Amino acid sequence: MAAKKPLNIGLVGYGFMGRTHSNGYKRVNDFFDLEYRPVLKAVCGRSAANAQTFADKWGYESIETDWRKLIDRKDIDAIDICTPNNTHAEIAIAAAAAGKMILCEKPLSMDLVEGQTMVEAIEKAGVPNTVWYNYRRVPAVTLAKQLIDEGRLGRVFHYRANFLQDWTISSELPQGGAGLWRLDAAAAGSGVTGDLLAHCIDTALWLNGGISNVSAMTETFIKERKHSETGKVEPVSIDDACAFLCRFENGSLGLFESTRYARGHKALYTFEINGEKASIKWDLHDLHRLEYFDHGDESKLRGWRSIHVTDSDHPYMKHWWVPGLQIGYEHTFVHQVADFLGGLAAGKPTSPTFREALATQAVCDAVLDSAEVGQWQTVVPV
Amino acid sequence: MAAKKPLNIGLVGYGFMGRTHSNGYKRVNDFFDLEYRPVLKAVCGRSAANAQTFADKWGYESIETDWRKLIDRKDIDAIDICTPNNTHAEIAIAAAAAGKMILCEKPLSMDLVEGQTMVEAIEKAGVPNTVWYNYRRVPAVTLAKQLIDEGRLGRVFHYRANFLQDWTISSELPQGGAGLWRLDAAAAGSGVTGDLLAHCIDTALWLNGGISNVSAMTETFIKERKHSETGKVEPVSIDDACAFLCRFENGSLGLFESTRYARGHKALYTFEINGEKASIKWDLHDLHRLEYFDHGDESKLRGWRSIHVTDSDHPYMKHWWVPGLQIGYEHTFVHQVADFLGGLAAGKPTSPTFREALATQAVCDAVLDSAEVGQWQTVVPV
Amino acid sequence: MAAKKPLNIGLVGYGFMGRTHSNGYKRVNDFFDLEYRPVLKAVCGRSAANAQTFADKWGYESIETDWRKLIDRKDIDAIDICTPNNTHAEIAIAAAAAGKMILCEKPLSMDLVEGQTMVEAIEKAGVPNTVWYNYRRVPAVTLAKQLIDEGRLGRVFHYRANFLQDWTISSELPQGGAGLWRLDAAAAGSGVTGDLLAHCIDTALWLNGGISNVSAMTETFIKERKHSETGKVEPVSIDDACAFLCRFENGSLGLFESTRYARGHKALYTFEINGEKASIKWDLHDLHRLEYFDHGDESKLRGWRSIHVTDSDHPYMKHWWVPGLQIGYEHTFVHQVADFLGGLAAGKPTSPTFREALATQAVCDAVLDSAEVGQWQTVVPV
Amino acid sequence: MAAKKPLNIGLVGYGFMGRTHSNGYKRVNDFFDLEYRPVLKAVCGRSAANAQTFADKWGYESIETDWRKLIDRKDIDAIDICTPNNTHAEIAIAAAAAGKMILCEKPLSMDLVEGQTMVEAIEKAGVPNTVWYNYRRVPAVTLAKQLIDEGRLGRVFHYRANFLQDWTISSELPQGGAGLWRLDAAAAGSGVTGDLLAHCIDTALWLNGGISNVSAMTETFIKERKHSETGKVEPVSIDDACAFLCRFENGSLGLFESTRYARGHKALYTFEINGEKASIKWDLHDLHRLEYFDHGDESKLRGWRSIHVTDSDHPYMKHWWVPGLQIGYEHTFVHQVADFLGGLAAGKPTSPTFREALATQAVCDAVLDSAEVGQWQTVVPV
Repeated sequence: MAAKKPLNIGLVGYGFMGRTHSNGYKRVNDFFDLEYRPVLKAVCGRSAANAQTFADKWGYESIETDWRKLIDRKDIDAIDICTPNNTHAEIAIAAAAAGKMILCEKPLSMDLVEGQTMVEAIEKAGVPNTVWYNYRRVPAVTLAKQLIDEGRLGRVFHYRANFLQDWTISSELPQGGAGLWRLDAAAAGSGVTGDLLAHCIDTALWLNGGISNVSAMTETFIKERKHSETGKVEPVSIDDACAFLCRFENGSLGLFESTRYARGHKALYTFEINGEKASIKWDLHDLHRLEYFDHGDESKLRGWRSIHVTDSDHPYMKHWWVPGLQIGYEHTFVHQVADFLGGLAAGKPTSPTFREALATQAVCDAVLDSAEVGQWQTVVPV
Repeated sequence: MAAKKPLNIGLVGYGFMGRTHSNGYKRVNDFFDLEYRPVLKAVCGRSAANAQTFADKWGYESIETDWRKLIDRKDIDAIDICTPNNTHAEIAIAAAAAGKMILCEKPLSMDLVEGQTMVEAIEKAGVPNTVWYNYRRVPAVTLAKQLIDEGRLGRVFHYRANFLQDWTISSELPQGGAGLWRLDAAAAGSGVTGDLLAHCIDTALWLNGGISNVSAMTETFIKERKHSETGKVEPVSIDDACAFLCRFENGSLGLFESTRYARGHKALYTFEINGEKASIKWDLHDLHRLEYFDHGDESKLRGWRSIHVTDSDHPYMKHWWVPGLQIGYEHTFVHQVADFLGGLAAGKPTSPTFREALATQAVCDAVLDSAEVGQWQTVVPV
Repeated sequence: MAAKKPLNIGLVGYGFMGRTHSNGYKRVNDFFDLEYRPVLKAVCGRSAANAQTFADKWGYESIETDWRKLIDRKDIDAIDICTPNNTHAEIAIAAAAAGKMILCEKPLSMDLVEGQTMVEAIEKAGVPNTVWYNYRRVPAVTLAKQLIDEGRLGRVFHYRANFLQDWTISSELPQGGAGLWRLDAAAAGSGVTGDLLAHCIDTALWLNGGISNVSAMTETFIKERKHSETGKVEPVSIDDACAFLCRFENGSLGLFESTRYARGHKALYTFEINGEKASIKWDLHDLHRLEYFDHGDESKLRGWRSIHVTDSDHPYMKHWWVPGLQIGYEHTFVHQVADFLGGLAAGKPTSPTFREALATQAVCDAVLDSAEVGQWQTVVPV
Repeated sequence: MAAKKPLNIGLVGYGFMGRTHSNGYKRVNDFFDLEYRPVLKAVCGRSAANAQTFADKWGYESIETDWRKLIDRKDIDAIDICTPNNTHAEIAIAAAAAGKMILCEKPLSMDLVEGQTMVEAIEKAGVPNTVWYNYRRVPAVTLAKQLIDEGRLGRVFHYRANFLQDWTISSELPQGGAGLWRLDAAAAGSGVTGDLLAHCIDTALWLNGGISNVSAMTETFIKERKHSETGKVEPVSIDDACAFLCRFENGSLGLFESTRYARGHKALYTFEINGEKASIKWDLHDLHRLEYFDHGDESKLRGWRSIHVTDSDHPYMKHWWVPGLQIGYEHTFVHQVADFLGGLAAGKPTSPTFREALATQAVCDAVLDSAEVGQWQTVVPV
C-alpha cells in the first residue's frame, strides 16, 4: 500500500466545532480509502493553556495563540476556521493570500457584502475551499439529493423546513462570551437566521435550486440579558426566531422557520419536499431515516416508507457497519473530510464551496432585510 | 324518563357534509343524555330525485326542492346549511328572518363583508346559531384547549398549523359542478384558504387568541381546467396553495400553510403550539392522539408524550367505548350536535357562533388581500 | 327503491357489547346498500328496569326479562347473545332449536367440549350464524387478509401477536358482578385467554391457517380479590396473563401473549407476519393504519410503508367518508352486520361461523391445558 | 496533565468486531478523561496479508499470525478476542494463564460447560476481564437500568425482547467461511440463539435478574446450503429462529424471540418491561430513544414519552455533543472501553465479566435443550 499523502491541518478555534472537525480528521482514514491523510499539525486559540489542553486531548502536535502565525507556518497546508462568525472573513482572506486551503465553519460571513470579499479573495488565490454545511452529508439527506437528481419527485410544488430548538427560553441565560457568543449579534451577525436557518437554506438551495424572493418576520422574545463580557444587562441584539415565505426559481413555494423557543425540540431540523410524483421528509432527531412517499406505488398500498438509511447501497454507508446499525451526527463531518480529500486527489471542488455558501448568505440577507422593512425582498443573485 | 323535546331539522344540501351532519343528528341520543332529540324532518335539494334518495337513505321524513319553502315550514325548527359557500348568506339571512335556528357549514361566507351581513341578521333575529368548525370537537383538540385554559403552556411563543392534501394534482381533474365546486371561486369564494386554512384559523383563534396581521402568498399550480358545467377549459380561479406568516395578539408568531398539492398527504391537518412551560402537537391523520411535552417533567425523563385520548376523563370520551378504543372523524359532528342541544337546553350559545366564525373570515380576507398585494395586512377586528 | 326486508333482532344482554352491536344494527343502512334492514325488536335482561333504560336509549321496541321468552317470540328473527360466556351455550342451543338465526359474542363457549355441542346444535338447525370476532373487519386487517390471499407475502416464517392491557393492576379492583365478570372464571371460563387471546387466535387462524401445537404459560399476579357478589375476599380463578409458542400447519412459528398487567397499554392488540416476500404489522391503537414492507421495492428505497387505510379502494372504506378521515372501533361491528345481512341475501355464511369460532376454542383449550401441565399440547382438529 | 498509562492491546481477529473494538480503543481518549490510554500494539490473524492490511488501516504497530505468539509477547497487556466462537475458550484460557487481561467477544463460549472452564481459568488467574455485550452501554439502555435501580418500575410483571433480522432468507446464501461462519454450528455453536438471543438475555439478566426456567422452540427454515469451505451443499446445522417463554426469579414472565427471517427488519433488537408503576421500551433501530410510560403522571396526560437520550444528564452523553445530536452503534464499544479503563484505574471489575456472561450461557443452553427435547428446562445456576 502506497503511503498516504499528509495534509497538514491548522485549526483556528477549539470550541464545539473544533471538536467535530478534529474528530472528522482523525477518523476518516479508518473508514475511507483515500490518497490523503490529515495530520493534526497545530491548533490555534487566544489562550495558550486552553489550546494546549485541546491539543493534548486531540493529539495536535503544536499550538499557536495568533492565527496570523499559524497562517505563516510553512508546515500548514489547510486552515480550518472554527471561530465566531465575525472573524471568518479576516482569517479566510489572509489564509487565501498565503495560499492555504480553507475549510470554514458556517455561516460563511457576517453578511453578503463581507462574504463577497471572501469569495473574491479565495477565488483569486485559487485555493481549495469548502464551508462546513455538514447536514448535506447525512446519508439520508444525500439520498434525498440522489432521488431528486434521478427525477423521482417530478415537478416540485412545496418545500418546507424548520430548525427548532429550546435552549434559550430561560431569561437567566446570559449573552456573549465563550459558548454564548451565538446570542450576541456583534459576534454572530444574527441569531437563528445565520445559526440555524442558514443550514435549512443551504440544504434547500442544494436540493431545490435558487430562491427568488422572501417575506420574513423575526422576533426577540427576551429583550435584555446579562452580557458575559461586560457583566451588565444589555439589550439582546439577535433574532430569537425567524420565519419566512419564499418562492423558488422552479416555481415551488417555500416555508422556513427557526427558533430557539420551541419547547420540546432540542435540534429538530426537518425538511419536506412535495413533488408531483413523490415526496420526501427528513428529521435530524432521527437522522438515519428518510421518509419517502411514491405515488407510483400501487394505489391501495401507498404509504410513507420509513427508510432506515443504513444499507451498503445508501450514501456513505458501505464505509461503516452493517445494515440496521445507525451512525450519528459526528459522521457528517467525517464524510465532509472524506469528500474534501477525495476532491483534492481528483482536482475537483468540494461542495459547498465559498461561492455556493455565498448564495445562502444572499438569502439570509434578504430574509433579515425583509423582516426589518416588512416587505418582500428579492434575493441578490450571486 | 321524561320524553325528549324534538328539534326538527331542515337540511339544505345533501352532499358530503349533508351526510356528516345527518349522522350527527341520528346518533347523538344513543350516546349523550340530552333534553332534546333531533328529528330529521326534511332535506332540501334542487333535484327532487336526489333529495328523495338521500331522504330514503338517512330517514328524512320529507323533501323540498326550494330552500325558501323549507324555511317557511312551521314544522322546521332549525335550518342546517350544507350548500356551496356562495349560498350561505342568502339562506342564513332568510332563515334568521323566519326565526329559525341556524347551523351553517364553514366557511361562514364568501368574504368578510358578506359575513358581516349574516352576523347582523342573525344577531338581530336572536336565533341560536353555530358554524360547523368540527375539528374543535376532536377530543384531542378539546383536550388541548383545556390544557391551555389551565395555563399549562405558559407564555406562548409559536403557533404553526398546516392542512395538506394531494387530491387535485392531476390536471385531468375538472373544476365546478357537483363535488368539485370547491375548485371554482364563483361557488367557493376561494380555494384552500376558505376550505382548509379556515379550519386552521378557527382552531388557532380558539386556542391562541386573535391574529393581528399577516403576510401571505398563494399559488395556482394548474392554471386551466375543464369546467364541468360549461364543458370548456377555463382559467382556474382558486388558490391551490396558500401560506402565511402572522403575529398573534399575545405576541406569539404564527405560520400557516395549506395546499392540495402535497403528495402523500390526504388530509393532514396538524398544529403545534410551543409555550414556555409546555408544548402541544396534533395531527388529523391520527386524530385520537395528542402529543404533549411538559418541561416540568424531571430533566432526564423529559420526552413528548403520546396521549391516546380515549379515556373517560378525556373530553367527550366517557360517552363512547372503553380506553384504547378510538373514535373517528364523524364523531366530531356528533359532539357538535350534542353541544348545540346542550346549549339550547341551558340557554347558552354554542361555539363557534356566527360572530366567532366571522373572525376567521376576517383573517381569511387579510390573507387573500396580502397575497394579492404582496404586503403585510392588518386583520380587521370583528 | 324497493322496501328493505326487516330483520327483527332480539338482543340478550345490554352491557358494553350490547351497545356495540346495537350501534351496528342502527347505522348499517345509512352507509351500506343492503336488501335487509335490522329492526331493534327487543332487548332482554334480568333487570326489567335496566332493560327498559337500555331500550329507551337505543330504541328497542320492547323488553324481556327471560331469554327463553325472547326465543319463543314469533316476531324475532335473530338472537344476538351478549351475555357472559357461561350462558352462551344454553341460549344458543335453545335459539337454534327454535330456528332463530344467531349472532354470538366471542368467545363462543366456556371450552371446546361445550362449543362442540353448540356447533352440533346450530348445524343441525341449519340457521345462519356468526360469532363477533369483530377485529377481522377493521379495514386494515381485512386489507392484510387481501394481501395474503393475493400471495404477496410468499412463504410465511413468523406470526406474532399480543393483546396488552393494564386495567386490572390495582389489587383494589374486585372480581365478579356487573362489568367485572371477566375476572371470574365461573362466568368467563378463563381470563385473558378467552377474552383477549381468543381475538389474536381468531385473526391468526384466518390469516395464517391452522395451529398444530402449543406451549403455554399463564400467571395470576393478584391471587385474591374481593368478590362483588359474595362481598368476600376470594381466590382469583382466572389467568391474568398468558403467553404461548406455537407451530402453524404451514410451518411458520407463532408467538402470542396477552395480559392485563402491561402498564401503559390500554388495548394494544398487535400482530405481525413475516413472509419471504413481504411483511405486515398492525396495531389496534392506530387501527386505521397498516404497516407493510415489500422486499420487491427497489433496494435503496425499501422501508416499512405506513398505509393510512382510508381510501375508497380499501376494504369497507368507500362506504364512509373521504381519504384521510379515519373511522374507529365501533365500525367493525357495523361491517359485521353489513356482511351478515349481505350473506343472508346471498344465501352464504358469514365468517366466522360457529364452526370457525370453534377452531379458536380448540386452540384456547390447548393453551390452557399446556399451561396447566407444563407440556406442549397438540391442538384438537375441529 | 500527567501522561496517561499505556494499555497495550493485542487483537485476535480482524473481522467486523475487530473494527468495532479498534474504533473503541482509538477514540476513547478523545472523549473520556481516563488514566489509561489504549495502544494498538498488535493484530493477529491467520493471513499475514490480511492482518497487515488491517494493521495499516487502523494503525496497529505490528502483526502476528499465531495467537499463541501474541500471548507470549511481553509488550501485550490485554488480549481482545474477536474470532469465531469455537476459538474463544482456547485463546482465553491461554491468555489467562499468561496473566493477560482479556476482553472477549460474545457469546462467551460454545456452551455452558466450556464457559465454566473459561471462568475457572480466568478467576484463577485473577486477570481483569469483560465480555463485549455492548448493548448495555447504549445510553438509552443504561438509562433504563438507572430507572429500574431507582425503583421506578415497581414490581415487574412482564419482560419481552426480540432480535429480528432478515439477511439469511435467500437460499443462495452459503454457510461457513469468512463472514458466514455464523451460519455454521461448528464455528458458532448455535445460530440466532448465541448470536442474537444472547444479547437479549444478557440485557434481561442485567435489567430484570435471573431466569428460572424456559420453554423454547427452534427452527431451521433453509435445510441445506452450500458450504463455503467444502464447496458442497450440506445440511444447515444452526437454528435460524428461536423463541422461548420463561419465568424470572422475580416472578415476572418473559417472552423472547430471535430470527434471521423477519423480512423488513435489519437488526431490530427491542425490549419492553412492564412494571406496576412504569414501563419501558427500547429499539435498536432508533437506539437514541427510550420510550417511558409513567403511571404516576396525571391521569388525563398519561402517555408514552419518547425520550431523546442525548442530554448531558443522560448516561455517557456529556462526553459527546450537544442535546438533540445522536450518537450511533459504534459508540457502545467506546463506552465499554471507557468503563474497562476506568475499572482498571479503580481496581473494579467491568460488567459483564466472564462470570456474568456465563449466566447468559446457562440460559442459552437451557433454551437449546428445551427446544431439542420439547420440555421446560430449569436454568442451571452459575
